[in-house]
Amino acid sequence: MKAREIHLNEYLTGAPKPENYSLVETELAAPGDGEVLVKNLYISVDPYMRGRMSGIKTYIDPFKLGAAMEGGAVGEVVESKFDGLKPGDHVMSMLGWRDGYTARGDGLMKIDTTFLQPQAYLGIAGLTGLTAYVGIKRIIDLKEGETLWMSAGAGAVGSAGIQFAKAMGAKVIATAGGADKVEYCKSIGADAAVDYKATDDLTAAIREVAPQGIDAYFENVGGTHFTAAMENLKQYGRVAACGMIQRYNDTAQASIPDNLVYMVGKSLKLQGFIVSDHLDIQPEFVKDLTEWMMAGKINPAETIVEGLENAPNAFAGLFKGENKGKMLVKI
Amino acid sequence: MKAREIHLNEYLTGAPKPENYSLVETELAAPGDGEVLVKNLYISVDPYMRGRMSGIKTYIDPFKLGAAMEGGAVGEVVESKFDGLKPGDHVMSMLGWRDGYTARGDGLMKIDTTFLQPQAYLGIAGLTGLTAYVGIKRIIDLKEGETLWMSAGAGAVGSAGIQFAKAMGAKVIATAGGADKVEYCKSIGADAAVDYKATDDLTAAIREVAPQGIDAYFENVGGTHFTAAMENLKQYGRVAACGMIQRYNDTAQASIPDNLVYMVGKSLKLQGFIVSDHLDIQPEFVKDLTEWMMAGKINPAETIVEGLENAPNAFAGLFKGENKGKMLVKI
Repeated sequence: MKAREIHLNEYLTGAPKPENYSLVETELAAPGDGEVLVKNLYISVDPYMRGRMSGIKTYIDPFKLGAAMEGGAVGEVVESKFDGLKPGDHVMSMLGWRDGYTARGDGLMKIDTTFLQPQAYLGIAGLTGLTAYVGIKRIIDLKEGETLWMSAGAGAVGSAGIQFAKAMGAKVIATAGGADKVEYCKSIGADAAVDYKATDDLTAAIREVAPQGIDAYFENVGGTHFTAAMENLKQYGRVAACGMIQRYNDTAQASIPDNLVYMVGKSLKLQGFIVSDHLDIQPEFVKDLTEWMMAGKINPAETIVEGLENAPNAFAGLFKGENKGKMLVKI
Repeated sequence: MKAREIHLNEYLTGAPKPENYSLVETELAAPGDGEVLVKNLYISVDPYMRGRMSGIKTYIDPFKLGAAMEGGAVGEVVESKFDGLKPGDHVMSMLGWRDGYTARGDGLMKIDTTFLQPQAYLGIAGLTGLTAYVGIKRIIDLKEGETLWMSAGAGAVGSAGIQFAKAMGAKVIATAGGADKVEYCKSIGADAAVDYKATDDLTAAIREVAPQGIDAYFENVGGTHFTAAMENLKQYGRVAACGMIQRYNDTAQASIPDNLVYMVGKSLKLQGFIVSDHLDIQPEFVKDLTEWMMAGKINPAETIVEGLENAPNAFAGLFKGENKGKMLVKI
């Protein structure tokens, strides 16, 4: 069976460009003993992948050049020589940017699509949702009645986080870029939302919607957002730092106003995290998410781009704010 | 009995100046029932007092204008009409910047001077030492064999922290301003010390003495120190933010390079704290400190300025780096 893959040609400096990638045709081998052949249905493009495109080892290795990039994908088993999977079963893999693959069945996660659409496992019910949950529940330890500022509220993690925080009984202030995204944040439950592109004083704009201050800040953006958060956090405020997308494509070091002294004066706690260090919280997440879904509190929040060949554009779009909710590529 | 007090004349902008204060003569009332008359022996001047001189409410109220400023003091009871105290007893109070006072005995803490000098209760065995202990033990949770960078290593909290961290079996890198302070840090146990005034690349200077990176940073300074810490912290590094003295006298907002994205990439945890939120750790502190003192591991680390009239200079000196160890005024 023929398949296509997206390869990384070179490590990136600055914003991702089409020429950084190639679309390569391959022939998938028939599955051997213990293997399955899978046709992908959806692949995930995520901001953290920018780090893997830089060629610098952080908490995760860089992508290999000249090979299909890795990443979350859900697919359907077409052919199986593995006992645990049969044709028609759905599986999740980290085998990423390709139409399909032949791989050992024991390296794949079978997913239950009785209630959930397969692509939900890449979004709100997958690592994206779990990331929002870890930040809000474990890092921030958000309490009922507290006020959370969710940055990038229309993004994948942000849109999940708004819904989770509301389900937990918190007040949620969201920020997003553009009037339609602000409306989107409100449509999924945010009590107030601010268009950061429409203000040159984000500190004042947040103060206006949360005059008593914020108890917690979910950091997806960095830069001016971080500065405004430090100004608006209350005594004992908490920050979960999940990402700082404003910085990922920087080629020179930016500066920010130094208001870090608030950390001392307000006894703030700031913590960066990576979801893979907190997988032990998964059972609690599934329990809460199921309960919220049954209560009709959860919207899947997805933006779908069609066609593997458009995956690089979908990825680049993350940095231009082209998604509402989780950005997925439909194969 | 005549006594003298230091009053604050006006709230401060920028660095403290002599004209901000007055030396005022008063007459102490004879003690009534339940009261004692105390002659102070030592008073404490501390960087946090700068905040109380600003007229802005933070975690603590501003000083009252035209009254003796509050602050830690140890004294000797001269006359007593309170059952729990007799002449010759030593007491600690927060009654601060004055020769002596008449006050209710039940608001004072009797201190045991069998083993410790009275002034130790203002320094390494008092809130200063406890502050270092809380930062290292509770906020950072420093482990044996880890590397701690102690900023302002020759300061009151820093000099206590160096000794505590060494006693806990850690490696300690200190920073201080000037060659004599660097030597001082080493003399009280630092494995390496860097003169931050002698380098224009603190990041590189720290890397040189801790090439494997630092596990933890004790923040007393802010600004360039904070930036260098973010660069040098290892994965899962911790920051205890106790103070940012570089910023306290600022009249305009400074800028720093924005390298906060390390918080995400290295899963860092940063936490500001104020010692009064952690007084429950006191028994554990006394136990550890006693053990370390008995083992000869602790140096009291004090700079003594003579004369109440010199208290404003002693205080201003904190911001010019004039102290090694705890700055005390001897009455």
